[in-house]
Amino acid sequence: MEVGQAIRLKRAVREFDAEPLLEQALRAILNAGRRAQSAKNRQAWHFIVLRNRQTLVELAKLGNYASHLSGAAAAIGILTPNPDERWSIMFDAGQAAAYMQLAAWDLGIASCPATIYQTEQARQLLGFPADLHLRVVFSFGYPADPGVLTAPPRPGGRKPLSQLVSFERWQDPLP
Amino acid sequence: MEVGQAIRLKRAVREFDAEPLLEQALRAILNAGRRAQSAKNRQAWHFIVLRNRQTLVELAKLGNYASHLSGAAAAIGILTPNPDERWSIMFDAGQAAAYMQLAAWDLGIASCPATIYQTEQARQLLGFPADLHLRVVFSFGYPADPGVLTAPPRPGGRKPLSQLVSFERWQDPLP
Repeated sequence: MEVGQAIRLKRAVREFDAEPLLEQALRAILNAGRRAQSAKNRQAWHFIVLRNRQTLVELAKLGNYASHLSGAAAAIGILTPNPDERWSIMFDAGQAAAYMQLAAWDLGIASCPATIYQTEQARQLLGFPADLHLRVVFSFGYPADPGVLTAPPRPGGRKPLSQLVSFERWQDPLP
Repeated sequence: MEVGQAIRLKRAVREFDAEPLLEQALRAILNAGRRAQSAKNRQAWHFIVLRNRQTLVELAKLGNYASHLSGAAAAIGILTPNPDERWSIMFDAGQAAAYMQLAAWDLGIASCPATIYQTEQARQLLGFPADLHLRVVFSFGYPADPGVLTAPPRPGGRKPLSQLVSFERWQDPLP
């Protein structure tokens, strides 16, 4: 799929088909995340892949609006150093997340982020060390409704450029 | 360009051709940023486009390793609410930044991030209000060496998957 088309059509999907993700697809998604840019090339991220149903069901209870995790074919959690240490930690995690979502979409695989609120329970569930933190986990899977993969963007889903772009000085319009 | 190819080949470029970016290209890049996902669809970002050479030269002095801004065909600063308010602010900014960089690369336009350290001077230079913050600005331009657009990734530029992926539990390997 062309870059422009993937960026235009990719949308969050919360309902997934039961079809599992093959290892090849998972690796393609993870490799995209690995390729993302990071401040000073630190690559201060670790990806934890979850396919075990019981784990996904437990994790879905550790955030609000995270229930889609329980029905995902797989999930990828992005472990990072403490996000409060410097702003670039979550900026870089966001870059890796964007790459993973686009690489998945390119394979017909949809995704949705979930914020983890009970972070200590997540640590116990997944066993990662105290110097790493889990704030966000992405569900992945083939969409229950394959039509979403080619549906045009929802009207009004994003603010128009005129509301969010300045040119040279604050609030001067684009030429 | 295919999504997978753009993700694999996109690299940071600091030296740019003098050729300006046409408005159509700038709008394609900005529209990609606008399409990125954000927590609760807040779209808590504002993009400030800079082409004025004097502004770029001044801005290049406001960060370390930011000198590439002075030679960029254009730059886009990502204004956000206070990054300390919640981790999702810079995570979402990172998602928008990744989309903009890939959309640019698809057009043969390279980019490089610059961190702004003298944030108050940047505010005075660009005139944005006190509730917005500028931490990162991206240079954009046609690369001085067009060969970078098709060069294979540098060996060792990224950690291998085996070092940064766990499966089901911390440090259990992928199957």
